[in-house]
Amino acid sequence: MKLTKTLPVVAALIALPTLGLAQEEGPVAGTDASSDSIFIFNSLLFLIGGFLVMWMAAGFAMLEAGLVRSKNVAMQLTKNISLFSIAGVAYYIVGYNLMYPLGNWSIGTDETGGYLGAFGVAVLEAVGVGREAADDYGYASTGSDFFFQLMFCATTASIVSGTLAERIKLWPFLFFTVLLTAFIYPIQASWKWGGGFLDTQYGFQDFAGSTVVHSVGGWAALAGALILGPRIGKYAKDGKVTPMLGSNLPLATLGTFILWLGWFGFNGGSQLAMGTVGDVADVSRIFSNTNTAAAGGALAALILTQVMYKKVDLTMVLNGALAGLVSITAEPLTPTLGAATLIGAVGGVIVVFTVPLLDKLKIDDVVGAIPVHLFAGIWGTLAVVLTNPAATIGGQLISIIIVGVFVFVVSGIVWFILKAIMGIRVSEEEEITGLDMGELGMEAYPEFSKG
Amino acid sequence: MKLTKTLPVVAALIALPTLGLAQEEGPVAGTDASSDSIFIFNSLLFLIGGFLVMWMAAGFAMLEAGLVRSKNVAMQLTKNISLFSIAGVAYYIVGYNLMYPLGNWSIGTDETGGYLGAFGVAVLEAVGVGREAADDYGYASTGSDFFFQLMFCATTASIVSGTLAERIKLWPFLFFTVLLTAFIYPIQASWKWGGGFLDTQYGFQDFAGSTVVHSVGGWAALAGALILGPRIGKYAKDGKVTPMLGSNLPLATLGTFILWLGWFGFNGGSQLAMGTVGDVADVSRIFSNTNTAAAGGALAALILTQVMYKKVDLTMVLNGALAGLVSITAEPLTPTLGAATLIGAVGGVIVVFTVPLLDKLKIDDVVGAIPVHLFAGIWGTLAVVLTNPAATIGGQLISIIIVGVFVFVVSGIVWFILKAIMGIRVSEEEEITGLDMGELGMEAYPEFSKG
Amino acid sequence: MKLTKTLPVVAALIALPTLGLAQEEGPVAGTDASSDSIFIFNSLLFLIGGFLVMWMAAGFAMLEAGLVRSKNVAMQLTKNISLFSIAGVAYYIVGYNLMYPLGNWSIGTDETGGYLGAFGVAVLEAVGVGREAADDYGYASTGSDFFFQLMFCATTASIVSGTLAERIKLWPFLFFTVLLTAFIYPIQASWKWGGGFLDTQYGFQDFAGSTVVHSVGGWAALAGALILGPRIGKYAKDGKVTPMLGSNLPLATLGTFILWLGWFGFNGGSQLAMGTVGDVADVSRIFSNTNTAAAGGALAALILTQVMYKKVDLTMVLNGALAGLVSITAEPLTPTLGAATLIGAVGGVIVVFTVPLLDKLKIDDVVGAIPVHLFAGIWGTLAVVLTNPAATIGGQLISIIIVGVFVFVVSGIVWFILKAIMGIRVSEEEEITGLDMGELGMEAYPEFSKG
Repeated sequence: MKLTKTLPVVAALIALPTLGLAQEEGPVAGTDASSDSIFIFNSLLFLIGGFLVMWMAAGFAMLEAGLVRSKNVAMQLTKNISLFSIAGVAYYIVGYNLMYPLGNWSIGTDETGGYLGAFGVAVLEAVGVGREAADDYGYASTGSDFFFQLMFCATTASIVSGTLAERIKLWPFLFFTVLLTAFIYPIQASWKWGGGFLDTQYGFQDFAGSTVVHSVGGWAALAGALILGPRIGKYAKDGKVTPMLGSNLPLATLGTFILWLGWFGFNGGSQLAMGTVGDVADVSRIFSNTNTAAAGGALAALILTQVMYKKVDLTMVLNGALAGLVSITAEPLTPTLGAATLIGAVGGVIVVFTVPLLDKLKIDDVVGAIPVHLFAGIWGTLAVVLTNPAATIGGQLISIIIVGVFVFVVSGIVWFILKAIMGIRVSEEEEITGLDMGELGMEAYPEFSKG
Repeated sequence: MKLTKTLPVVAALIALPTLGLAQEEGPVAGTDASSDSIFIFNSLLFLIGGFLVMWMAAGFAMLEAGLVRSKNVAMQLTKNISLFSIAGVAYYIVGYNLMYPLGNWSIGTDETGGYLGAFGVAVLEAVGVGREAADDYGYASTGSDFFFQLMFCATTASIVSGTLAERIKLWPFLFFTVLLTAFIYPIQASWKWGGGFLDTQYGFQDFAGSTVVHSVGGWAALAGALILGPRIGKYAKDGKVTPMLGSNLPLATLGTFILWLGWFGFNGGSQLAMGTVGDVADVSRIFSNTNTAAAGGALAALILTQVMYKKVDLTMVLNGALAGLVSITAEPLTPTLGAATLIGAVGGVIVVFTVPLLDKLKIDDVVGAIPVHLFAGIWGTLAVVLTNPAATIGGQLISIIIVGVFVFVVSGIVWFILKAIMGIRVSEEEEITGLDMGELGMEAYPEFSKG
Repeated sequence: MKLTKTLPVVAALIALPTLGLAQEEGPVAGTDASSDSIFIFNSLLFLIGGFLVMWMAAGFAMLEAGLVRSKNVAMQLTKNISLFSIAGVAYYIVGYNLMYPLGNWSIGTDETGGYLGAFGVAVLEAVGVGREAADDYGYASTGSDFFFQLMFCATTASIVSGTLAERIKLWPFLFFTVLLTAFIYPIQASWKWGGGFLDTQYGFQDFAGSTVVHSVGGWAALAGALILGPRIGKYAKDGKVTPMLGSNLPLATLGTFILWLGWFGFNGGSQLAMGTVGDVADVSRIFSNTNTAAAGGALAALILTQVMYKKVDLTMVLNGALAGLVSITAEPLTPTLGAATLIGAVGGVIVVFTVPLLDKLKIDDVVGAIPVHLFAGIWGTLAVVLTNPAATIGGQLISIIIVGVFVFVVSGIVWFILKAIMGIRVSEEEEITGLDMGELGMEAYPEFSKG
C-alpha cells in the first residue's frame, strides 16, 4: 500500500486542539463503522475522487482548445489526450513507486526523510483479495489509491500544455511529458506525500497540492516558455502586445466548469479517508470551501476587470475561478467559508495583475497557466499559515523554493536537451499556417470560414 | 444542523401504508448499518448529489450559450459563471440560515409555521469533528448539507438568465442574482423545506422542488421578461414572430445531457438519506423515475412536433426532456415507472404548446425557460396528488399560488427598482451589435465568419 | 430481483485459486460490514456506475456530432437524444424482463440454459421498502439494478447511430432502435447475463460486455450499413475514397473524454458488488485497468499513425482510446496493469488497420464504430483467455459467433422490412443538402459561414 499521504494530516489534527478538533473517540460497541466498511468507504472516496480528477483532463483539453486560435485546436486536443495517456502508462511503470517507496528509498530513509524513491512497476492487489491478504486492510485498496494518485500526476502534465501551445512541436512535448510524469512529478511529490524530507524535516503542509501539483506544472511550463520563446507576432519591438484571442469561449467556459467540478474530487479526495464521522465531515468542509474559493476568485476577477478596464473580461473570470481553486488547494480543510472565499479572491486578484505582467516580461503563456497554477499556487501554499497552525511560513517558503528550483532546473535541462537533439519549435511557416495543417494535416473546424 | 427537510418526507411515508411502505424494522443485532455508517452514507449522498447538481450550472451555461445568437454568447457565459459564483457567496452569508432557521425564526415559530428565517452566516462543523460534537450525529454532516442545498439555490438563479438573454445588462442582472440567492429563494424555500408555514399549515408536498426551485426561477424570469420587454425585431406589429435561432445546437444538446445527468443528484439527493435499506431503495426508485420522466418528455415533444409541424424540432425535444425532468421533480419517488413516464410526457406536451403561446403574448423567453421551469413546474406540483396520497390538490394549489405571488411580486419590484436606478436594458445599438462587443468588448467566436 | 449477473463472476472467482484469489473469510464478529451496509454499498455502486454510463450517451452524441459534417449535425443530435429516450421506455416495458427472467423463461430453463426471457413490465420495489420486503435483501435494490442495466441497453443503441449517420432517415432509425432496445439487445444479453445458454452451456466470459454490448451495437450497425449503402460521393468507381471530414474535432474529443469517464462506471459497476473488501478492491483494479487500456489504445494509434503516415491522426487517437476501452471490457479484472495496457494497445492497432479496410470494402462507417466496437470487441472477448483461466477459446469463439449471427441476421431482416415499408434512406437531394435542412428544417450552426 502507498497510503502514507494521510499521516501528516492526522498528525496535524492531533496536534491542533485549538482548532476545535474533537479527537475521535474510541470505538463504541455497536455504533462504529466496521473495519470492512471503513476500508470500503476509504476506497470509494479514492474511486469517486479519482474519476472526478480524471474528468479534469477533459477540462484542460476544452479550456485550452477554446483559448487557442482555431488553426491550432486539433493539435492542442492531440496533445491533451496524448499526455493523459502517457501519464497513465509512465506513472504505472515508474512514477508510483518513485512517489511512494514505502521505506525502500533509493536515497534516504523514512526516518531521515527520503530524497529518491524506489524503482519498479506498480502492482495492484490480487483479484478478490480478502482481509488478511489486503495490502492495508486497516485503510483502503491499493488499486483505488493508485487510480487516485495517477490522476494527480496527469493533472500536472495537463498544466504544461496550455502555456506552450501554438508553437511547440508535438513529439518533443510528449517526450517531456514522459519525463515529467515518470520522474519529475513523482520524485518531488515523494518529498511531501511519500514521507520524504520536506515532510519530515520541514513540516511542509500542502493538503492537495498547490505546490506539489500546480506550481510544479507551472514551473515546468515556465521553463519551457522561456526556452521556447513567444509566438511570432505576439510582442512587437516597441513593447506593444498583440492579443491573440481564443477561438471558442464556450469551450473555454465548459473547460472551467469541468475543472471546478473535478476539483471537488481533487481536494475532497485528498482527505484520503471517509470511513469515520470526522473524515466525512472534513470531506464535506472541503467541498464547501473549494466551491466558495472558486466563487471568490471568479468574483474578484469579475469586479476587478470592471473597475480597471471598465469592461468585464470573461477569460479573466474563468482564470480567476481557477486561481481561486488553486489557492485553496494547499489547505481546503481548516479555513472557514469566509476565509476560503478570501483566499480564493486573492487568487483571482493575482491573476488579473500577473497576466499583463508576464506579457511585460515577454513570457508568452497562451492560456494563463503560469498565473493560475504557479503564482496562485505559491499564494495558496503560503496562505496555509493563516488557518493551519501546523504550517510555518519558513517551512512553506523553503519547500516552495526547493520544489521550484528542482522542477525549474530539471525541466529547463530537459527542454534544452530536446531543443538540441530534435528542436522543440515548429517552423515559422508552420506556426503561421497553424500547427493543425502544418503538423497534423487536418483542421479542427474544416468547414467554417475564418473571417 | 439544517437537515429538517427530511422530516415531512418521513412523516408522509409513515402516514401512507397503502403505498406499500414497509416501516423500517427496529435495529436487528448485528445486521443494521452502524450509526457511523448511516452518518457517512447520508453525508455521502449529499456530496454526490451536490456535485451532480453543481454540474447543472455548466448545463445551463451550455444550453443557453447554444440557444442565443453568437453575438451574445460570451455575455451569456459571463452571466452564468458569475451567477453561480454569486450564489456561492450569498447563500453562505445570508441564504442558508434564512432557509433553515432551526427554530430561530425571525417571524413565526416551528409550531405555528415560520415566515422569515434567521439572519447569520453559515458555520460548518469543526475540523475532524467527533460523534459527540457533530451537529447531528444521528443524521449527516452540516458541511454536506450546506453544499447540497447551495446547489439548489444556484440552480434557481441559473433558470433566470436564459429567459432574459440577449438584452439585459450584466450588472443589474447580477444585482438581481444577489437578492434572489440571498433572500428571495431562501425565504420561500424555508416555507416548505425549513419547516415553515406551507409545510405545517398546508401540507405542501414538493419533494425536490418543482415549485420551490423551478417555478421560482420561472416566476423571477417572467417578471423580468415583462419589465424588460422583448428583443428588438422579435415581434412585428402585424403579429409576425421572427425566429432568432440558437447559434450552436451541439452546445444546447450537451447542456441538456448535463442537466439530465445532474438531475439524478437533484432528485435522488432529495431523498436526503441513504443509510438504510429503505432509503437507498428509494434513491434507486428516484433515479429510475427521473430518467424515464425525461425520456417521456423528450419523446412526447419528438412525436408532437412531427405530428403538428411535419418536422421534428430538436430544441423542442431538448426542452421536452427538461420539462419531463421538472415535472417529476415534485414527486420522483411514489410514481411507478409508467406513471413517471406519463408525468414527464405531459411536461413535454406542455412545452410544445406553451412556447408558441408565450410568443403570442409577446413575452420573449429566449431559451424557453418559462415553459420548462414554470409551466411544467406547476404541472409537476399538481401531479403529486396522482401518486402521493399525502398531497391534496388544495394544499398544492394554494402553495403554488403563495410562492408564485411572493416571487413574482418581489422580483417585479426589484426589477423595477433596478430599472429606475441604473437601467436594466442595453442600448438599442448594443443590442443590435450584440452584447459581446457592446458590453464586453470581446467575441465568443472571433475567427468564424458569420453568414 | 434481477441480479443474477453476478453469479458467474462469483463462480469464476471461487474456481480460480491460481489467480491468487483469497476466498472471503466468514464474517468476523464486529468487523464485517453489516448486511444493511452491504445492500447499500452494492446499490450505491449501481447508482454511481449507472449515472456514469448514462453520461456515455452524451459522449456518443458529442463524438458523432463532431465527426459528421455540419449539415448533418442537428440530425445526429436528434437521433442521439431520441434513441436514449426510446431505450429508457422500451427497456422498462419489455427489455428488462426479457433480459432477466429469473427462472420464468419463455423458452428454456435456468438449468438447461434459457433462450427467450419473460414478457412483462419492470416493477421496482415499493417505496421505503424494508429488509423483509426487499426483493433481495442480501444483495441490492431492484431499482438500482434496473437503472444500471438500462444504461447498458442504451449504450448499445448509441453505437449504431454513428455508423449510419448522414444518410439514414430519422424515423426508420428510431423504429429500429425500439426493436433493438426492447428485443434484440435484451434477448442476447439474457443468454449470458440472465443466466441463459451461453452462460450455462458454453461458459462464456464477458465481464462488462465487449460482446454483449459493443459487438452487438457493431453487428447491428454493420447490417444497417450494408443495406443502407455508402454516402453519395464517398467511394468513386476507380476505388478512390473521398474523405468526409468531421466538422468539429473539439466536440469529438470531448465525446471521447466523456466516454472514457463513463467507462469507469461501465466496467467498474459490472463488478456488481462493492460491499466486501474483495469487491471494492476488485472495483479498484477495474478502474485502474480500464484507464490504462484506454491509454494503451490511444498511444498505439498515436505512434502507429505517425509511423505509417508520418502524421498523427487525431481521430485515430480518439478511436484508439475507445478501442482500448472496448478491448478491456470483456475482462477488466484479471489482467495486470501491464496486460491491460497491451490488450488496449492491440485494440488501438486494430482500429488503425481496419478503418481503411472498411473503406476498401466500401462499407461506409461514418465515425468508425464498427472497428471500435465490433472488431475491438471481438478481440477483447478473445483476449479474456489470456488472463482468465475460466474462459476457453472455444467457448468465447462460439459465443461471439452465436451472438453475431443472431444480431446480424435479425437486424438485417428488420432493416430490410423498414426499407421495404417506409424506406430508410433520405432522398439524394436531401443527402446533398444535408439532413438538417432536408429533414428537420433547421441548422446546427445557422450563423457560421461554410467555406
